[in-house]
Amino acid sequence: MRWHLWQRLVEEQKDSCVFGLNWISTKEARQIKETYAKAGVNIDVAARLKELIGKHARSTHRPEVLSGVGFFGGLFEFKGFKQPVLVSSVDGVGTKLKIASALARHNTVGIDIVNHCVNDILTCGAEPLFFLDYIAMGKLVPEQVEAVARGLAQACREVGCVLIGGETAEMPGLYAGEDYDLVGFIIGVVEKEKIIMGKTIVVGDTIIGLSSSGLHTNGYSLVRKLFGVSPSALNTHYPELGRTLGEELLEPHRCYYQQLKPLLPIIKGMAHITGGGLIGNVPRILPQGVAAQFHSRAWTMPPIFQLIQQRGNVDQNEMYRVFNMGIGMVIVCSPSNVDHLTQALPDAKVIGEVVKLVAKARVIIR
Amino acid sequence: MRWHLWQRLVEEQKDSCVFGLNWISTKEARQIKETYAKAGVNIDVAARLKELIGKHARSTHRPEVLSGVGFFGGLFEFKGFKQPVLVSSVDGVGTKLKIASALARHNTVGIDIVNHCVNDILTCGAEPLFFLDYIAMGKLVPEQVEAVARGLAQACREVGCVLIGGETAEMPGLYAGEDYDLVGFIIGVVEKEKIIMGKTIVVGDTIIGLSSSGLHTNGYSLVRKLFGVSPSALNTHYPELGRTLGEELLEPHRCYYQQLKPLLPIIKGMAHITGGGLIGNVPRILPQGVAAQFHSRAWTMPPIFQLIQQRGNVDQNEMYRVFNMGIGMVIVCSPSNVDHLTQALPDAKVIGEVVKLVAKARVIIR
Repeated sequence: MRWHLWQRLVEEQKDSCVFGLNWISTKEARQIKETYAKAGVNIDVAARLKELIGKHARSTHRPEVLSGVGFFGGLFEFKGFKQPVLVSSVDGVGTKLKIASALARHNTVGIDIVNHCVNDILTCGAEPLFFLDYIAMGKLVPEQVEAVARGLAQACREVGCVLIGGETAEMPGLYAGEDYDLVGFIIGVVEKEKIIMGKTIVVGDTIIGLSSSGLHTNGYSLVRKLFGVSPSALNTHYPELGRTLGEELLEPHRCYYQQLKPLLPIIKGMAHITGGGLIGNVPRILPQGVAAQFHSRAWTMPPIFQLIQQRGNVDQNEMYRVFNMGIGMVIVCSPSNVDHLTQALPDAKVIGEVVKLVAKARVIIR
Repeated sequence: MRWHLWQRLVEEQKDSCVFGLNWISTKEARQIKETYAKAGVNIDVAARLKELIGKHARSTHRPEVLSGVGFFGGLFEFKGFKQPVLVSSVDGVGTKLKIASALARHNTVGIDIVNHCVNDILTCGAEPLFFLDYIAMGKLVPEQVEAVARGLAQACREVGCVLIGGETAEMPGLYAGEDYDLVGFIIGVVEKEKIIMGKTIVVGDTIIGLSSSGLHTNGYSLVRKLFGVSPSALNTHYPELGRTLGEELLEPHRCYYQQLKPLLPIIKGMAHITGGGLIGNVPRILPQGVAAQFHSRAWTMPPIFQLIQQRGNVDQNEMYRVFNMGIGMVIVCSPSNVDHLTQALPDAKVIGEVVKLVAKARVIIR
């Protein structure tokens, strides 16, 4: 693991290394710097960036962290659990990054990837412990990486998750221009007896939906195909959105952790609605013999999805396969707990119920 | 987390979803398939790939794994430790991937990234628990992803590490042609009292080096610049290498875990020699006030490094900053334990000693 790019290491070490018994002189140091400058690498900027990333990462630290930024591994002391189960997940932001690049706004994608990961492990009832990122790019643009790291740290702090490590890789041969990829890895924990996996779900249980904040991190390839990523397209104001298309598309992925944490004991199953939509994700938590039946009129499809559907004349089936359609998290509970949940969660809506599986239809959208 | 691409989900769900009360008919299923075929996505192939990756992943499982492949998070029951500290790391393979692509050999990079991560957390004394991968590409080439997954699983099995999850992302807008990026994320554990961080290193301690198996995963940008990645360049046989350049360059990153595991109690510090070489990595484990002094004549620089140096007329300083120069792992121990270590590790060599820090020279190579 390297918080620093290799050239950042060079910067760090360039005045602290001797070959034979000779110090690297100021002249030699200048030569090294010139060599890297020729290759397009500004090592002063890289050193400053390292400092900034370190600052953001440290802002998320908890007493459990035993290592400083820059060691080979992140060390996290693990205590206070009876029968802990570690829950891990990895995900990328996908081509939402292309919108961020087009608008030169890079902090929200950092928030996106943390929240995506937090929600994924929340579906098992897990609380986040720590997070690591991977940012790879064609050309290091320090402001860009710093903005991403700022977003990562902000979202981590909000859920008490430590940004314990990461990797920044500059690979001009793989990524074109200022393109970059952003990947997140999360580790959380849940007591074994409190794991939520949907196993107790039975016919007659209620399905509750929590609103998404927009597209979250899925469906951007289709959106880009329909609207393009030109400044004029992204800066177009749509009255139905109340803002520009670009602002709507960069809305960060909502995090459900803080709201759902106190309610986990009465939740039987949760599905995070990402790629594949309700159809792709809800079956992952359903036991044998049951299906999820949704009433699409129980919630309002947000304007952005209507806009996309109209623009591309996209089939309704297709919409439900690609987008979350306004529901970012699905909760299954027993009917007796519905009032408790809907009162505690202001935007929660009953959107369906668990029914007997007929033939192979695991998800029914009426 | 998605073990499946979104289109794999589509395949999975295409015959198990109804809208309204209508089944998707065979005709509709065929239409969906055609739609994806037009977009260049072969959903049958994707489904087969999902099965293959699942098989490789399951081959690494241990009883601690509580979740199947395909859930939102990987669940790992964590038991048998007194005062556990979790050690995590993330890394990419870098542009070694370009060599793999040029030679259409993709299993070794899977081994590379696992071993890289295992070595990184080994430096703290940690044993690997589980691993997650991220593979992103412009166009899904199933044979390619399957080969990578096979390599990941093989390397994981060798150290008892579970391949617990991963993400496969197809992003034509970000990756050109058959290009792909490969990232690994590892979690290991060490008892708090057994953490190795170099804190007990003192002047007079001995530095032992373990051979690298080649370039490991660093310096490939420079190598590509010097030799190119044409078939003729990579298939050139070099007598001093005893094989072709391509074979030499794809040699997997060596894993030091199994050999070093029983010896950890007598090791004071370990540095995994990756990007930055001895100069960049050894200072990470040195306490205040000491420096590492290496005797470059104590080991033979392997032929590949000589070849690179000659080809590019690369300065010696530069070589030590970019490459491992034949030493993949550095161990610091007290002089009294040198015999024990060198007898247990057939290729171990005493290559230096810890000296008093003079001015700012943290690494001295004589």
